[in-house]
Amino acid sequence: MTWNTTGLDELPVYEKLMKLARNPFDLTAPGALAPERISNYKASAAGFDLLFSTQRLDDAVLSGLQQLADQSGAVDQFLAMKRGVVMNRIAGYESENRQVLHTSCRDIFSDPPCNAEATLQAKQQLEKLDVFLAQLDKGEVTNRRGETFTDYVNIGIGGSDLGPRALFLALSAYARENRRVHFISNVDPDDAAAVLQNLDLSRTLVGVVSKSGSTLETLTNEAMARAAYTRAGLEAGNHFVAITGQGSPMDNPQKYLRSFHMYDYIGGRYSATSMVGAVMLGFALGYEAFIEILRGANEMDRAAEEKDLKKNPALLLALLGIWNHNFLGHETVAVLPYSQALLRFPAHLQQCDMESNGKSLTRNGEKVPFSTGPIVWGEPGTNGQHAFYQLLHQGTAIAPAEFIGFRQSQHKFDLVIKGSTSQQKLVANMLAQALALAAGQKDENPNRFFAGNRPSSILLADKLTPYTMGALLALYEAKIVLQGFVWNINSFDQEGVQLGKVLANRLLDHMSILRHGGAKDREKHPESWAMLEAAGILQEDQPL
Amino acid sequence: MTWNTTGLDELPVYEKLMKLARNPFDLTAPGALAPERISNYKASAAGFDLLFSTQRLDDAVLSGLQQLADQSGAVDQFLAMKRGVVMNRIAGYESENRQVLHTSCRDIFSDPPCNAEATLQAKQQLEKLDVFLAQLDKGEVTNRRGETFTDYVNIGIGGSDLGPRALFLALSAYARENRRVHFISNVDPDDAAAVLQNLDLSRTLVGVVSKSGSTLETLTNEAMARAAYTRAGLEAGNHFVAITGQGSPMDNPQKYLRSFHMYDYIGGRYSATSMVGAVMLGFALGYEAFIEILRGANEMDRAAEEKDLKKNPALLLALLGIWNHNFLGHETVAVLPYSQALLRFPAHLQQCDMESNGKSLTRNGEKVPFSTGPIVWGEPGTNGQHAFYQLLHQGTAIAPAEFIGFRQSQHKFDLVIKGSTSQQKLVANMLAQALALAAGQKDENPNRFFAGNRPSSILLADKLTPYTMGALLALYEAKIVLQGFVWNINSFDQEGVQLGKVLANRLLDHMSILRHGGAKDREKHPESWAMLEAAGILQEDQPL
Repeated sequence: MTWNTTGLDELPVYEKLMKLARNPFDLTAPGALAPERISNYKASAAGFDLLFSTQRLDDAVLSGLQQLADQSGAVDQFLAMKRGVVMNRIAGYESENRQVLHTSCRDIFSDPPCNAEATLQAKQQLEKLDVFLAQLDKGEVTNRRGETFTDYVNIGIGGSDLGPRALFLALSAYARENRRVHFISNVDPDDAAAVLQNLDLSRTLVGVVSKSGSTLETLTNEAMARAAYTRAGLEAGNHFVAITGQGSPMDNPQKYLRSFHMYDYIGGRYSATSMVGAVMLGFALGYEAFIEILRGANEMDRAAEEKDLKKNPALLLALLGIWNHNFLGHETVAVLPYSQALLRFPAHLQQCDMESNGKSLTRNGEKVPFSTGPIVWGEPGTNGQHAFYQLLHQGTAIAPAEFIGFRQSQHKFDLVIKGSTSQQKLVANMLAQALALAAGQKDENPNRFFAGNRPSSILLADKLTPYTMGALLALYEAKIVLQGFVWNINSFDQEGVQLGKVLANRLLDHMSILRHGGAKDREKHPESWAMLEAAGILQEDQPL
Repeated sequence: MTWNTTGLDELPVYEKLMKLARNPFDLTAPGALAPERISNYKASAAGFDLLFSTQRLDDAVLSGLQQLADQSGAVDQFLAMKRGVVMNRIAGYESENRQVLHTSCRDIFSDPPCNAEATLQAKQQLEKLDVFLAQLDKGEVTNRRGETFTDYVNIGIGGSDLGPRALFLALSAYARENRRVHFISNVDPDDAAAVLQNLDLSRTLVGVVSKSGSTLETLTNEAMARAAYTRAGLEAGNHFVAITGQGSPMDNPQKYLRSFHMYDYIGGRYSATSMVGAVMLGFALGYEAFIEILRGANEMDRAAEEKDLKKNPALLLALLGIWNHNFLGHETVAVLPYSQALLRFPAHLQQCDMESNGKSLTRNGEKVPFSTGPIVWGEPGTNGQHAFYQLLHQGTAIAPAEFIGFRQSQHKFDLVIKGSTSQQKLVANMLAQALALAAGQKDENPNRFFAGNRPSSILLADKLTPYTMGALLALYEAKIVLQGFVWNINSFDQEGVQLGKVLANRLLDHMSILRHGGAKDREKHPESWAMLEAAGILQEDQPL
């Protein structure tokens, strides 16, 4: 590897930035938000503008951040990732040891693609999907009564749920007539029950998504869905579609109408543009709309290869995040879409970012001496303005914000009320929030005083479409991995989820011992037994 | 007022707690999670157990926190609030200067109630609602074709949306047959468009919720909904119900089928148990179920009057939060319900908590010298386990967690898979997470090492019902105001939302000037003009 694999704090420019951070740009100073600043602090690609004049930095910091990007070799690593270098590893220790090739799913427009083999596999799956969707359209694949399918239930959890769900909600304005999608994810039995009870199962397809074919929640929910089909006198095999790794226990034509494949070089949280999202989104929006998602994502992936911050919004957003997090000391980042359709996009990013960068170890297996991934949270505006924005403006904690907005609405169903359309009000509010957080306000009443200097950025596109949704998704995916490269952490594994699984199985074993009349082996795991008892799980004969 | 109105840092026990915080209880030490600790560290009320053995404290800290509660007079202030003392004020400055009486809505079971006048008003509204719901049931109020109403659209934002929505989702398992509820909140025109396009408006009631009768988003969405009725050839007056302040511009029988009243002593974020939630929840669940919500809330409100931390889960949760936030330095709190039905409860709490306690000013108008309200975020488990829990376990930031779970499911549609039901898996996972976060795990592979000492609590009840939902809501409402009392801040105003409104109106004025061919008055507000231009709002003739 040619890039630097030392941590952030060992890069030459680190000390310079630490020094600059002691006295960050004062957004409340008279004239601080000068028109030239506002128009110059802007980077654009793939339909998006990133406005960042309301961040606490000046040209000196910006040039320091450019050096930080260069010295860390973040963009070179991004290119290496796209080409298929094994990036998912911890040197010297047992690790997943895999390539990271989610970008290959949308590299179908380039010739040659960055990684020919992975993109060939992506194309083969897309062709299979195209055929299947055409069969649905032509009535060649139907239920036993010869009726078309109108509903689709996506069963998956984590990356097999959050990304696909966020994308579906974002684009449901473009859903084809009489095509509805529902989601089951939680092992909570009420999740499946609530979804299944309101469906005409006879006209419903069920997509089961698990790379390993062994995700406990997903298998459990699949079994519940199959039980509902049996109860309704229907043959589940005519309705269930598998999205899984080739050769997994789920890759079984006996049990599924079709199987679509995903590959081990695509992590769950980066899988929305693979078959994980494709089958459901293709059903809902049509094949061509899904290809448009890929086109937008690919365009942004290519912009993410630019070394110049001003030409690479993903890299810029990554470095602004590092400035706020590591240098100005802000622990969280709020993602605030001014678009109701992006309702669940923050939850997807929360997953993608926090599971990727919530790490304490460098890729050399050493403890990081600085802060890594922030806590990501957020809800759509203007709703949030009537909820938690009070704290953003006047709280003691400072949460840098990333606004996302669009110049036009999706449905074009709008009215002029008090001199403006709803869409104008929406955009005006977003821009106003960035200005208000930055500039603050003096007032003699201390309760009407706003300290200002609360940093934010604005991502803006013309309209939320399949293309811009793809670009936005890729922008954030690239932001996250670029931050990981600068921090020198492995953004692609998730060892932190294992311990909870082990302890949950231990508790389930305890419960099972008791149900079968066994004795409590208190000696071995006193805390698990005590927790079950304190929780009242073992005290009475409950339905549990 | 008899209680102490100095800040947290001036209370006698503050220094003692600061000292104890230098060396907090080590949850990873051998035997730290002893069975006695696990069973003793528990407080119960109104159907809920609060388990807190996995917090970083011991008996010395607990006794310090009890002293902190006592010295701040938090419980006395809570009682004063319930009785009608003007708690919403900043001494010496213009402020809202109001009573805070959301608890009066559910104080209908006591004789005499804490505040007779407010509870009488609550009862009168409930009686009006009871009559209206019975008229719907008996077919005395129908659409013009004499058909019953099957759907209800709630139009409101902030407190008129998040709390009611969270409660409806939590309890939709108990919805009456053929009664569905939908929500429109965002000024984003696509929010209304997406909801309205799929409804049979002729059989739909629309509840418009705004205390002032002048919330811009809500009036705008109401106008869009009325336009849809007109377009469908329907008379909106036969379908629209107002929930508003008595005498507000919306309190107009010409325009609404019915009006239900809310009062200025109930803040929006605390209004879910007033008519704000009552009309919609009564429609969906029936009147009796809504009364059960009030019964649970009232029971918890009464437990919140206990001075002993161990008998008052709300007070204990408040003090545990202060321990983690002010003494151990954790900036956020994650609310993690192990119940898919509580999907939107964290968003409601995010509002209720951050809008209440995101303040920098004491009730004496002085700047607070310590940290106030935390950033609140969260998503249901087990979903979160496949998303952001990686950071909770192995990230560099520590986010204290509040788990919420139930021993039984709502739908009772469950299966045994691999030896356990889904409900058992769900509860086992929640308990396991608390143990794993606390105890951590040693491993030779540094990537499989868990540092532990990540604090959490568990709130547990038998089942999510109207009663327990009411209790849970009241528990958190009490927690939030009790924290505010300890911090000596005003948890009941929201001055921090004003500046954004002013700037949004300025931007809308700019847009209007341009649409009418006026000149840009760049001198006065150069930053607003520059922001509009940089955002590309004014550059071309867009539909905007």
